Amino acid sequence: MPPNPRSRLRVVLVAPRNPLNIGAAARAMYNFGFASLRVVNPYEVAFREAKSAVRAAPVLKAAEEFTTVADAVADCYLVIGSTSVGHRELHHPLRALEPAARIIRKRLQSDAVAILFGSEKFGLSNDDLSHCHWLLRIETAAPDQSMNLGQAVAVCLYELTRAARRPAAARREPKHASAAINEQITVMLLETLERSGYIKPLTSASSEDKTRRLVRRLNLSQRDSAVVLGMLRQILWKLR
Amino acid sequence: MPPNPRSRLRVVLVAPRNPLNIGAAARAMYNFGFASLRVVNPYEVAFREAKSAVRAAPVLKAAEEFTTVADAVADCYLVIGSTSVGHRELHHPLRALEPAARIIRKRLQSDAVAILFGSEKFGLSNDDLSHCHWLLRIETAAPDQSMNLGQAVAVCLYELTRAARRPAAARREPKHASAAINEQITVMLLETLERSGYIKPLTSASSEDKTRRLVRRLNLSQRDSAVVLGMLRQILWKLR
Repeated sequence: MPPNPRSRLRVVLVAPRNPLNIGAAARAMYNFGFASLRVVNPYEVAFREAKSAVRAAPVLKAAEEFTTVADAVADCYLVIGSTSVGHRELHHPLRALEPAARIIRKRLQSDAVAILFGSEKFGLSNDDLSHCHWLLRIETAAPDQSMNLGQAVAVCLYELTRAARRPAAARREPKHASAAINEQITVMLLETLERSGYIKPLTSASSEDKTRRLVRRLNLSQRDSAVVLGMLRQILWKLR
Repeated sequence: MPPNPRSRLRVVLVAPRNPLNIGAAARAMYNFGFASLRVVNPYEVAFREAKSAVRAAPVLKAAEEFTTVADAVADCYLVIGSTSVGHRELHHPLRALEPAARIIRKRLQSDAVAILFGSEKFGLSNDDLSHCHWLLRIETAAPDQSMNLGQAVAVCLYELTRAARRPAAARREPKHASAAINEQITVMLLETLERSGYIKPLTSASSEDKTRRLVRRLNLSQRDSAVVLGMLRQILWKLR
């Protein structure tokens, strides 16, 4: 069996300042089935602490530390910078996340790929970006405000795995009630409505049609129809 | 110009414990152009503090507080629960995020829609879920671990806006009953069932949830809901 393509993705956090964000990125990676987290020049003390915590997620425990971006991406064949801010002058081709993810998924079939995420405050520097083949942007409605680091990682990994899923997420439609059952419900409902005075004898022919159509529109499942029948039976018993 | 469909989405956080998560949800909403944040029973002190902080994002400042889920979704016509954990026994139809987002985008063209997110520790309770028409799940690779709250919100809003540029084919769906009307039907049906002896006092808590879910599954149109209310009113009048 070939190795899982997701094992070839490196999530590279460049100079992250907040250990909570490193933890959040690790958690999103675990959620979506990625394992290789690399951190370049983190705020030292906090990173060490977070990494060695007893309850640290496996992805965080296995995180690798580097002092330069060059080292962190040395084994990768495609290096992509991420950005969510729009106004910056960029010297790289820029792709929206969705087409970017298509390319990345394809490359992960055979090659290691890195996605770089910049620090919370400054994003990726021009020097960081110089290691990248191109950039991806999460298209937001508010280009004046960058995304939270952990959320940006989560959204990227979601998009990377979104279309990779087997189509059959098995939506079981519940089995519907038969026409016979719907009619039984209609008849009992009509008697209930007559006994409670909702239907006047004079108008009852058209009321019957209306009620019958209403019951069909409910589109009851087999299970729900049994419940509704039981309810009506009891109400009728009381009204009689 | 018609109001922005995104203004019709309510992001409802139920019993969030960590103010950082409320802030993260608000930030993701701002990033993706959503504004209506509702919080049910937050951890009081922290929420008040976060909300009143000078640097709080506009979405957070405008967040509304409620004491019950019913109140928080009363003006909504479609109520959806979110879950990222797979092993739980569910009584609702479950949709993957992508098809779910298609439905939600369409409904937002005309109606207010709520998405509920549970507390960090316990997710949504059965009682919370009983207010929902159906559930959406972010499909992850690790169904044993739930997603971080702020990341789950970010991924949902990303997916909601991802394909938004292609306008959905406008098919005329009948207008649906609001959550307030569905709840009114539920309350009257429960009284009917109690008065007719269908519900025993001992089991009535779980019966209440079951009945609430049943009413949501009927997915009544606005017109039908008025008819059903009229029927129940008359039956109740007779039973009293």
